[in-house]
Amino acid sequence: MISHTRQSAVTVLGLGPMGRALAGAFLDAGLPTTVWNRTPGKDRELVERGASGARSPEEAVAASGVTVICVVNYDAVDAIIRGDAVARALKGRTIVNLTADTPARARNTGAWAAGRGIGYLDGAVMTPAPTIGTPAAVFLHSGPEELYREHRPVLDKLGGTHTHLGEDIGRAAAFDVALLDIFWTAMAGYAHALAVARAEGVTGRELAPFAKGIGAVLPPIFEQGAVDMDHGRFPGEVNPITSAVSSMAHVVHVSESHGIDAGVMRAAEGLARRVIGRGHGTDGFLRVTELLNPRGFER
Amino acid sequence: MISHTRQSAVTVLGLGPMGRALAGAFLDAGLPTTVWNRTPGKDRELVERGASGARSPEEAVAASGVTVICVVNYDAVDAIIRGDAVARALKGRTIVNLTADTPARARNTGAWAAGRGIGYLDGAVMTPAPTIGTPAAVFLHSGPEELYREHRPVLDKLGGTHTHLGEDIGRAAAFDVALLDIFWTAMAGYAHALAVARAEGVTGRELAPFAKGIGAVLPPIFEQGAVDMDHGRFPGEVNPITSAVSSMAHVVHVSESHGIDAGVMRAAEGLARRVIGRGHGTDGFLRVTELLNPRGFER
Repeated sequence: MISHTRQSAVTVLGLGPMGRALAGAFLDAGLPTTVWNRTPGKDRELVERGASGARSPEEAVAASGVTVICVVNYDAVDAIIRGDAVARALKGRTIVNLTADTPARARNTGAWAAGRGIGYLDGAVMTPAPTIGTPAAVFLHSGPEELYREHRPVLDKLGGTHTHLGEDIGRAAAFDVALLDIFWTAMAGYAHALAVARAEGVTGRELAPFAKGIGAVLPPIFEQGAVDMDHGRFPGEVNPITSAVSSMAHVVHVSESHGIDAGVMRAAEGLARRVIGRGHGTDGFLRVTELLNPRGFER
Repeated sequence: MISHTRQSAVTVLGLGPMGRALAGAFLDAGLPTTVWNRTPGKDRELVERGASGARSPEEAVAASGVTVICVVNYDAVDAIIRGDAVARALKGRTIVNLTADTPARARNTGAWAAGRGIGYLDGAVMTPAPTIGTPAAVFLHSGPEELYREHRPVLDKLGGTHTHLGEDIGRAAAFDVALLDIFWTAMAGYAHALAVARAEGVTGRELAPFAKGIGAVLPPIFEQGAVDMDHGRFPGEVNPITSAVSSMAHVVHVSESHGIDAGVMRAAEGLARRVIGRGHGTDGFLRVTELLNPRGFER
């Protein structure tokens, strides 16, 4: 893997589970890797594997042309990189920010970096730490395309697939937030379903094969629904939102008959009922997107 | 398909999109099929294809050893089958109720049928009408195993996979409700994600490939989570609930910054924060199942 790209050095700031996985993948790929973490001691295993442990973030970023930072949120990013010494050390270098936060924060950090002559790419890691360095890892990136192309060989050392979503520095965070929205809402539904099933004497292992079936049914529905929404179409012939609401009401009813909170489904049902109240009962459930974001559908 | 099983006659009550699909599959399989619907005229196309159109539900059920009913809910089922004339005509015959409702309603209908000498199977159709008669159809059944075995050859004419979940007549409805819980909560998450993405200038078609990726990631997480919950384990090493809450807060924040209602995610986030407040912040998100249904985890 190393032979066909120019050897570079890389710095990793932040050594939580994800930061350690990132640094470990760079080390495994043979890249000279410098690491730093606010709380000392987290670098021990990485240093034993060949990383250089920096004593300060300015020393860390000065050691490499490109620095990858992955910490808890952008407040933590700012606390590390916006100090004068670090900002000076970053000048003329590039920072790739894989920390998760909002698109607005990403744009704010991008503007700050541009004002100080620092190359800035924003990104998101869509898969958990154990996937890093494997084909299963998924990375999203946004920012200047030329900068992305320059550092792509280093990013490729992290394994998996990398997608550049565009020059708007906030795009990786926008995709990240939308995908986390899908993931965590689905997980809330699954947790609730497991609780309801258990109250009905159905074990997780009994439910799981069918739950996995739902997981398999979703991708084509997601695909078709996205195309339909882009055209402002919400077809409901096969499954009108009145029928969806009937199912949702059953879920709420059974749940609450067991004393199980149904707040998530009640909120979803409420959106669907508002769509019906506006005269769209024969449309499909995704008409909810227009209720949620009416300005997005103005012409 | 017909040659290896005993030819039977079948009646279908209820000719909405699903009822018409069920009757159509029986006709395609060459079964003598009698149909009835409360609102007249819905049987026209089926009669043209060879079905017998009955003038009353009692005439319809008297024409076949087994009747399949699929209407909007159990209130509608009761209005059709609990009249004296229909109940008398059903005596000694079997009714397979594929209408969606709650497990309690299924058990109530099962008890009513038993008291009148009527064979009763409850079931759920997990896939939309266009799948009926194809390998993609998924049916769940519950009730007396002997009765299920007797009528399995007729049910098989509907195509797809049939699973008998047990003798408890409420089990098909319990699975149905849990699976609808997963499906509609996930759809609520997707609708919301599409709305947030659009507000950020990301189209449905741009988001869809990654959304499909989330759909692919869920099944193994569902499987492992089910096994863990059955053991009362909620491991959070890879993804602690504190980290989930941080992601959820980003979704709420970005959503509301665009004026987009985040009630579904706020409800999910609230559950997660309550789990953290009880001292389980290092556990995984599925610890929420115990918060929702504490009695289910008492020993």
